[in-house]
Amino acid sequence: PGSLKLAVIPGDGIGQEVTAEALKVLEVAAPAGVKFEPTRYDLGAERYLATGEVLPDGVLEEIRAHDAILLGAVGGKPGDPNLPPGLLERGLLLRLRFELDHYVNLRPARIFPGVTSPLADPGDVDFVVVREGTEGPYTGNGGAIRVGTPAETATEVSITTAFGVERVVRDAFARAERRPRKKLTLIHKTNVLTYGGAVWSRIVKEVGAEHPDVTVDYLHIDAATIFMTTDPSRFDVIVTDNLFGDIITDLAAAVTGGIGLAASGNVNPDRTTPSMFEPVHGSAPDIAGQQKADPTAAILSAALLLDHLGHHASAATIEEAVIADLAGRAGAEPRRTAAVGDAIAARVAG
Amino acid sequence: PGSLKLAVIPGDGIGQEVTAEALKVLEVAAPAGVKFEPTRYDLGAERYLATGEVLPDGVLEEIRAHDAILLGAVGGKPGDPNLPPGLLERGLLLRLRFELDHYVNLRPARIFPGVTSPLADPGDVDFVVVREGTEGPYTGNGGAIRVGTPAETATEVSITTAFGVERVVRDAFARAERRPRKKLTLIHKTNVLTYGGAVWSRIVKEVGAEHPDVTVDYLHIDAATIFMTTDPSRFDVIVTDNLFGDIITDLAAAVTGGIGLAASGNVNPDRTTPSMFEPVHGSAPDIAGQQKADPTAAILSAALLLDHLGHHASAATIEEAVIADLAGRAGAEPRRTAAVGDAIAARVAG
Ligand SMILES: CC(C)[C@H](C(=O)O)[C@@H](O)C(=O)O
Ligand SMILES: CC(C)[C@H](C(=O)O)[C@@H](O)C(=O)O
Repeated sequence: PGSLKLAVIPGDGIGQEVTAEALKVLEVAAPAGVKFEPTRYDLGAERYLATGEVLPDGVLEEIRAHDAILLGAVGGKPGDPNLPPGLLERGLLLRLRFELDHYVNLRPARIFPGVTSPLADPGDVDFVVVREGTEGPYTGNGGAIRVGTPAETATEVSITTAFGVERVVRDAFARAERRPRKKLTLIHKTNVLTYGGAVWSRIVKEVGAEHPDVTVDYLHIDAATIFMTTDPSRFDVIVTDNLFGDIITDLAAAVTGGIGLAASGNVNPDRTTPSMFEPVHGSAPDIAGQQKADPTAAILSAALLLDHLGHHASAATIEEAVIADLAGRAGAEPRRTAAVGDAIAARVAG
Repeated sequence: PGSLKLAVIPGDGIGQEVTAEALKVLEVAAPAGVKFEPTRYDLGAERYLATGEVLPDGVLEEIRAHDAILLGAVGGKPGDPNLPPGLLERGLLLRLRFELDHYVNLRPARIFPGVTSPLADPGDVDFVVVREGTEGPYTGNGGAIRVGTPAETATEVSITTAFGVERVVRDAFARAERRPRKKLTLIHKTNVLTYGGAVWSRIVKEVGAEHPDVTVDYLHIDAATIFMTTDPSRFDVIVTDNLFGDIITDLAAAVTGGIGLAASGNVNPDRTTPSMFEPVHGSAPDIAGQQKADPTAAILSAALLLDHLGHHASAATIEEAVIADLAGRAGAEPRRTAAVGDAIAARVAG
């Protein structure tokens, strides 16, 4: 303690604006005696377009020497001819997740009081998705031949290992143990992706045997999207692979009041590398620079960061401030990004 | 004309019950002078458990000689130790889709009058998903080593070809041209699955250039799930790969009033093989044999079958009968599966 080294990567579009607010709140929330030392890294579309650099190895090594990473959003203007699709996602965001072995991609979903869900009757929703972060079809394994011709053939390989599944499943069970309902739902597509699915099923069964007090169930990803809209309160802890986790967490965010509120942590539970915290939303180039973005997801991600670093009380203070702010939003005029950050920071300051 | 040879595969669980109702309605809906000659194939879990057979080659060849296939649902009791996960799905359902080259998996989504959506304010929803049916991670390409050990490693390969994408994209554009809004949305995950994604993006752009009156947009699958809950009326024609189509159509079914109403066709638009029509729902072993299943999705699938065979008026008659039946459901006592079929058949009969 004393000083916490924070790598700050605002990234692209609204990432810049929301990160500024998260930092603002983080500073006032820091526990007595703890000081954040932020170092800003200007990675993202702008740097790439100016220099051709995405994530230089030296920068990655510098980032590695921090206690945690706060990230805004990554991704340029869709269709920008100078930005090959996926280049920033693969080269920056996913590279960080993979190189820093962020195998737990943690995404809480909760309908806060006063927040409107698009569902007519969502019930009491409070669950957390533990998305695997280092395998599945996200590894970059794949290729294409005869590119651009009528004979083009492309492949992507989804990789699932017992090693990778076991560590994330253990984390998910540990979380389920700490929650009152103690329920864990595996989401996969074991009837079609039978090879990877068998690994998930077996390991959930094996680790589940060590947790007899945790109730375990299974849903195919397609059926899970149905329950997410008809009965989301059934979920407590969800554990799932990288791709299904990507999909179900955006849906969960929508159902719990929107992507403007959805926080996430890319966590290395072994603490051998800095974990990275970021809103689930993207860079939203269409509204960038207009102070229209909702910084709440970034601010809640900062709370996850504090929690991860062991500052549970400070994390709770941010969450309470956000809950209080949200309660006042219904019917009110939309505020500028900075005004939302100011209001939440003021509540945290007390 | 004259007589239409129909291969009927009721399959497992509620597949049996709903198929009986679909056949009932189909018979009364048949246009004057057209007679259905149904041949029943007892494929599914029961046959497999009794004989070890899933889809014998000879049976496949017999089925191939029909004009169309009506299928109920495939899949045994989840967790049945005698039924390896995916065995029936891969060996029967997917084998039929692949061997008969059902490259257009057609799934309309519409909120019918009187039907309740779980969304508070769904708007006027009427779209169709054109899901690719013969590629993606559904081909069975994959494997595993060191199975059952802590060193297990499994792979699944998603295959995307320009050949496969172009034919389904052409079909989707043709459908968009026939619809008043003329809008096509490509759903993929081009920022992560960059190789396959590039094929989809390129071909949608190329074929789109031949359809200047069709408005084209693109959504990542994760973002698409958000819009499906916050603004589903924005969709007109969706074209997408096999896996994303599986996921988004279950979500679409949920949003438009439930999987009990969602019909689908596995279509070979070249008509070189029989197309296959089936409800989107599964075999629901938990309620099987209890006359609790809603046969509406199977009945609407029979309407898609008639439509595919060119009997547009008869198809429309079924759809109108279903709409009339649905309008009377709100607040009414739930009926037995056969009673719903009887009621719709009576309306069709006039
Ligand atoms: C930007 C993209 C690569 C990323 C993902 O697919 O993981 C995003 O959608 C997310 O969920 O964090
Ligand atoms: C049963 C399963 C193999 C199938 C699929 O994944 O396509 C089903 O979910 C569907 O959507 O028809």
